[in-house]
Amino acid sequence: DVSFDPKEHQHLRYNPLRDTWVLVSAHRMKRPWAGQVEKPPEEHIPRYDPKNPLCPGNTRANGKVNPDYDSTFLFENDFPALQPDAPDPGVDQHPLFQTRAARGICKVMCFHPWSDVTLPLMKKQEVVKVVDKWAEILEELGATYPWVQIFENKGAMMGCSNPHPHCQVWASNFLPNEPALSDRCQRNYYQKHGEPLLLEYARQEAERKDRVVVENFAWLAVVPHWATWPYQTLLLPRRHVLRLTDLTTEEREGLADIMKQLLTKYDNLFEVSFPYSMGWHGAPTGPHLKEDNSHWQLHAHYYPPLLRSATVKKFMVGYEMLAQEQRDLTPEQAAEKLRNLPDQHYKTREN
Amino acid sequence: DVSFDPKEHQHLRYNPLRDTWVLVSAHRMKRPWAGQVEKPPEEHIPRYDPKNPLCPGNTRANGKVNPDYDSTFLFENDFPALQPDAPDPGVDQHPLFQTRAARGICKVMCFHPWSDVTLPLMKKQEVVKVVDKWAEILEELGATYPWVQIFENKGAMMGCSNPHPHCQVWASNFLPNEPALSDRCQRNYYQKHGEPLLLEYARQEAERKDRVVVENFAWLAVVPHWATWPYQTLLLPRRHVLRLTDLTTEEREGLADIMKQLLTKYDNLFEVSFPYSMGWHGAPTGPHLKEDNSHWQLHAHYYPPLLRSATVKKFMVGYEMLAQEQRDLTPEQAAEKLRNLPDQHYKTREN
Ligand SMILES: O=P(O)(O)O[C@H]1O[C@H](CO)[C@@H](O)[C@H](O)[C@H]1O
Ligand SMILES: O=P(O)(O)O[C@H]1O[C@H](CO)[C@@H](O)[C@H](O)[C@H]1O
Repeated sequence: DVSFDPKEHQHLRYNPLRDTWVLVSAHRMKRPWAGQVEKPPEEHIPRYDPKNPLCPGNTRANGKVNPDYDSTFLFENDFPALQPDAPDPGVDQHPLFQTRAARGICKVMCFHPWSDVTLPLMKKQEVVKVVDKWAEILEELGATYPWVQIFENKGAMMGCSNPHPHCQVWASNFLPNEPALSDRCQRNYYQKHGEPLLLEYARQEAERKDRVVVENFAWLAVVPHWATWPYQTLLLPRRHVLRLTDLTTEEREGLADIMKQLLTKYDNLFEVSFPYSMGWHGAPTGPHLKEDNSHWQLHAHYYPPLLRSATVKKFMVGYEMLAQEQRDLTPEQAAEKLRNLPDQHYKTREN
Repeated sequence: DVSFDPKEHQHLRYNPLRDTWVLVSAHRMKRPWAGQVEKPPEEHIPRYDPKNPLCPGNTRANGKVNPDYDSTFLFENDFPALQPDAPDPGVDQHPLFQTRAARGICKVMCFHPWSDVTLPLMKKQEVVKVVDKWAEILEELGATYPWVQIFENKGAMMGCSNPHPHCQVWASNFLPNEPALSDRCQRNYYQKHGEPLLLEYARQEAERKDRVVVENFAWLAVVPHWATWPYQTLLLPRRHVLRLTDLTTEEREGLADIMKQLLTKYDNLFEVSFPYSMGWHGAPTGPHLKEDNSHWQLHAHYYPPLLRSATVKKFMVGYEMLAQEQRDLTPEQAAEKLRNLPDQHYKTREN
């Protein structure tokens, strides 16, 4: 009988945050790749581009002029998917044709006045300002909206249409599918085990070590046991924290540090500005601020598409869309690779 | 007060097959696109390529030689994500670190001996042979495996690495996430309403008409009310059918017809060989063959990525990955566009 080797033998792993399973078939990395190759990310971006609507002092599509900002800059999305005043769609009596009103607001937040920097290349104190601004927007929009999704699409491969470092904030009058599912899973775990799922998970990972990428006094970045994207990571506080607004000054500094470290590893992996989508999940807001949300733990998900190189991504297609997500290397292999990369960014390394 | 217009006002629609919601914000199509542009699909593919491992008579990676086949051709995937004999991963006692054995088999099925044809360009009787072969594989692998996923990744944009017309079949000893969810939703609906969800849905759509793309005596292709991908369609039999194996000869002919019609519309939309992932969902097999599966209705999902043109796709990224899927045109707009396209394939049109 052959004994089980996760790198050689496909198996399933359970995602307790989504109540789903992922198929891990690491031996698939052996197959040669003859499929689509992406354009590598643009490496020569001008610091200031008079045509870029995100740069300080420039005019946007709607004629508004950006201030000459020197830190973060927040404004309303000129083409918002959610608007505050859409009328109600009314009711179709048939259960298979249900519709609902959707109201909200979409904002864009620039991280820095320069187009040629990214979070890992920014100074720590500049990243702290980004964290502070996130908490501020959450406080403001979360006063009324039940869900405030802060997310960053980085790189053209991830549908990002502007190289200037920025993220988006979409607040809605409804709890979207993903946080609703995560809320359900965390609540069930809490009811069954009497402690927050992700607090216990962080504690376990800090002990087990093999999926940890970087850590500090307040934070832990791991390739989760149930990761679907090849180099997916989960960023977790060590303390029980419900929302970004609850982070102390020290924790915000620690967050800036670990984000810079994690994103430097990402960039160093293929020596390219690493594309990803990332976003924050914390306890819901608005009417939920008054409820007991002890089952929640703040966390950020990073979903990077690359698999083999700067130009070969993982395709989440056929089997993944119709049946189940499948990954081609183990989470432990991915974590080890990232962990062993230099801490110094390849662009600032002397040679 | 403004009255509700689905083309102008964002709203949510319920997906009863997945128990999720989709955000429809059709006014977003107005924003200009400055982001990533894809390579258009390869249009000049040789009928026979001595280097292509899928062509008749050629040698594959593992040294096996393909027969000189003249219709469909089925063989085992040389780099299978599922193998029949992987050892058991054993048990981790912690609920957050659950693993399970995964066993199965992966096959590849060529549709035709020529590399330069696709289903819409094949003769009807050739497509009927594909349908027959699907039913045959399902019968064979479904005798023991609980789930047999038949799916096609078409086009490099959908991770397909070989232009030769083919699909894949992955059979597993477990019910994957997507069919498990669909099973639950169809079962709940059946228990509550006493009839199969998708049978009633097809009846409703046949009456309502505004989401129908093509139809015939046995089948209906619609852009579902809850579509997430811009030109997503759902292919449904009019009669209550559990599995591909239950289709009559007439229904198989009708299926070949409607597939050719639907895929011709797809190709005509941007006058390009339309990329997509598609696959079949029917009642589970293996041990489930003995159970009552009356809540199930056979159907195929088509998930095409293109949004604006042959080279601009919809990016399901940031908000979609972290919060909720969002679409940029209404399902009714998509259905109308497809419905109004010529029935004759652009490549066979005289000019
Ligand atoms: O098996 P293929 O065609 O080589 O690979 C393609 O389809 C698979 C099944 O959907 C995916 O896992 C791969 O990411 C994709 O590139
Ligand atoms: O808002 P952007 O950056 O123009 O657009 C990008 O992010 C959105 C939110 O994830 C997606 O809906 C779009 O498909 C994507 O291209």
